[in-house]
Amino acid sequence: MSEKVRLALDAMGGDFGPSVIIPGAEIALSRHRDLEFVLVGDERQILPLLAANPRVKAHAQIVHTDIAIRMDDKPSKALRYGRRVSSMWKVLDEVKFGRAAAAVSAGNTGALMAMAAFNLKTMNGVERPALAALWPTLRGESIALDMGASIGADAPALAIMAVMGAAMAQVVFDLERPTVGLLNIGVEEVKGLEFIREAGQILRDANLAGLDYKGFVESDDIGKGVVDVVVTEGFTGNIALKTAEGTARQIGEYLRGAMSRTWRSRLGYLLARTAFATLREKMDPRKSNGAVFLGLNGVVIKSHGGTDPLGFASAVDIAYDMARYDLQSKIRTMVDAYHALRAEPAPVSLEAAS
Amino acid sequence: MSEKVRLALDAMGGDFGPSVIIPGAEIALSRHRDLEFVLVGDERQILPLLAANPRVKAHAQIVHTDIAIRMDDKPSKALRYGRRVSSMWKVLDEVKFGRAAAAVSAGNTGALMAMAAFNLKTMNGVERPALAALWPTLRGESIALDMGASIGADAPALAIMAVMGAAMAQVVFDLERPTVGLLNIGVEEVKGLEFIREAGQILRDANLAGLDYKGFVESDDIGKGVVDVVVTEGFTGNIALKTAEGTARQIGEYLRGAMSRTWRSRLGYLLARTAFATLREKMDPRKSNGAVFLGLNGVVIKSHGGTDPLGFASAVDIAYDMARYDLQSKIRTMVDAYHALRAEPAPVSLEAAS
Repeated sequence: MSEKVRLALDAMGGDFGPSVIIPGAEIALSRHRDLEFVLVGDERQILPLLAANPRVKAHAQIVHTDIAIRMDDKPSKALRYGRRVSSMWKVLDEVKFGRAAAAVSAGNTGALMAMAAFNLKTMNGVERPALAALWPTLRGESIALDMGASIGADAPALAIMAVMGAAMAQVVFDLERPTVGLLNIGVEEVKGLEFIREAGQILRDANLAGLDYKGFVESDDIGKGVVDVVVTEGFTGNIALKTAEGTARQIGEYLRGAMSRTWRSRLGYLLARTAFATLREKMDPRKSNGAVFLGLNGVVIKSHGGTDPLGFASAVDIAYDMARYDLQSKIRTMVDAYHALRAEPAPVSLEAAS
Repeated sequence: MSEKVRLALDAMGGDFGPSVIIPGAEIALSRHRDLEFVLVGDERQILPLLAANPRVKAHAQIVHTDIAIRMDDKPSKALRYGRRVSSMWKVLDEVKFGRAAAAVSAGNTGALMAMAAFNLKTMNGVERPALAALWPTLRGESIALDMGASIGADAPALAIMAVMGAAMAQVVFDLERPTVGLLNIGVEEVKGLEFIREAGQILRDANLAGLDYKGFVESDDIGKGVVDVVVTEGFTGNIALKTAEGTARQIGEYLRGAMSRTWRSRLGYLLARTAFATLREKMDPRKSNGAVFLGLNGVVIKSHGGTDPLGFASAVDIAYDMARYDLQSKIRTMVDAYHALRAEPAPVSLEAAS
């Protein structure tokens, strides 16, 4: 593995732009010495930050652009003023033209989805991209998708998501045949929505070598880590993800309130502070920052917009893993195997039949 | 308020049957002296429990039946063997024939939904029933519906749910004009699914006196308590509810693990144990046990099947409030007002026009 892994970073993305992106890249470089970056954005903002981040300075090239996508613009508007010229579009170009192995942006989610689909296009055999997130569980982590890249999936689209999620799990968890579940409101075969049951049947029939389909899972099972990959339609997935985030914050608030109420509880807190640090680390959303767009002609990672350098470094770590362990060819292999198994038998020609 | 509130309890419902239901009723009676019960179930199991629960003994009447609905039967099967004769069906009969003001069951959710809809029918002006739960928030509690009673609501169905949820909030939170939000994956008007945007337009146009429509809410806002009532389609609602439950359990596990790791953290835990007790109480799922079926000709409460007497008592408390403060006529008034505002102007007759 002497070859460098080169990533394109949207230096202007996120709530804080280069002041988070560059220090985040510095942290990622300290973990992966074989990384190098293309920093896309306003060099007047980027250059002054390089002095304080010497590793980035030594391993990055800058592609200058004045145009940055604002965090609250609608995708259509962002495409109008940002197509071809914005830092967000240009990191995708780096991937498209083979100059970078993956793109990372902390920018406007809707705009990134739209630009990624528009600029990179979906892979052969994949109709819609999906957004996959790492979901912390009692057993470690699972992959959950779709977190909102495409709304209203049907049965074949869910099946393809399962296939792509399994490919990602092969890379992230280093598994030959990751377990996959479809999110439903009951685990019995008769429960839930028709298209989910149908997707289950497709996966069971396909019985792919790289995917161990386990049936339905309920949403209170996700956190237990009962399967490596949880698959659901994008609207539901986004609701589930944000419900979990909201509940974690809510309990954090309860805990802070309870621990500061009396001198005994404050003393208890002091004594147990390493335990609380462990807990905070377990619940730290920065650790699982970085969602992956699956099904495009190139690897694109979406970081939370409000994250700090440590959080952005996690998103870069994911991009590194996806590039280094070749997510794209794992997806290609899995999607091809799926379509080969699903293909109708070739029709017999009239000449041959007569 | 001298009149008694009479509730019908399915004594055979839940994982533990009368051994939880009767002590649960005893706890509820200690809180509401004007309660009385119809206990429906196997009197051979009920009678021996009455000695240890003297309040229930003094304020309950038994309706005997041998037939109990099993927790894991499909609704269709439950209806085949349980229609007219099971304890679940018979508590609904008590409500239907005016002998009880509400029915409470900890039995099989699917079977209870099917029997309640079949036996009590939906109210005039309501096409589908909805299941509403109390959702603990940083500000207290909100009402969330539909938690899975009917899957695949359209825009008018969502609007009617909002109306019924607001009526319930008037009763539970004693508010004149509760705030209502539609669950969506973004708060902007252009986001999310078409039928949700349409439901928002209906509610905005209707501008009802008893409902303050606040627009879209995201699922990480539910726990903040940004609105009194959160409305969503049943599949999504069930996913959100179970994701929150699962996440709370997961964090509880993390916390237990962290606090027991070292002698310092164990000592800290001991010092802060009243704080942890407060936290446990905040997160106690038993406190918010008891979901309400809205939109039927009668009040029906679903308790968790695995709950203990304290949890079952919460479900009885909710049934008491709904009966005492007349949920049904509040819903009736709200639904009528909604339909009156939504009605097409009466067509002008040909004679009058000419």
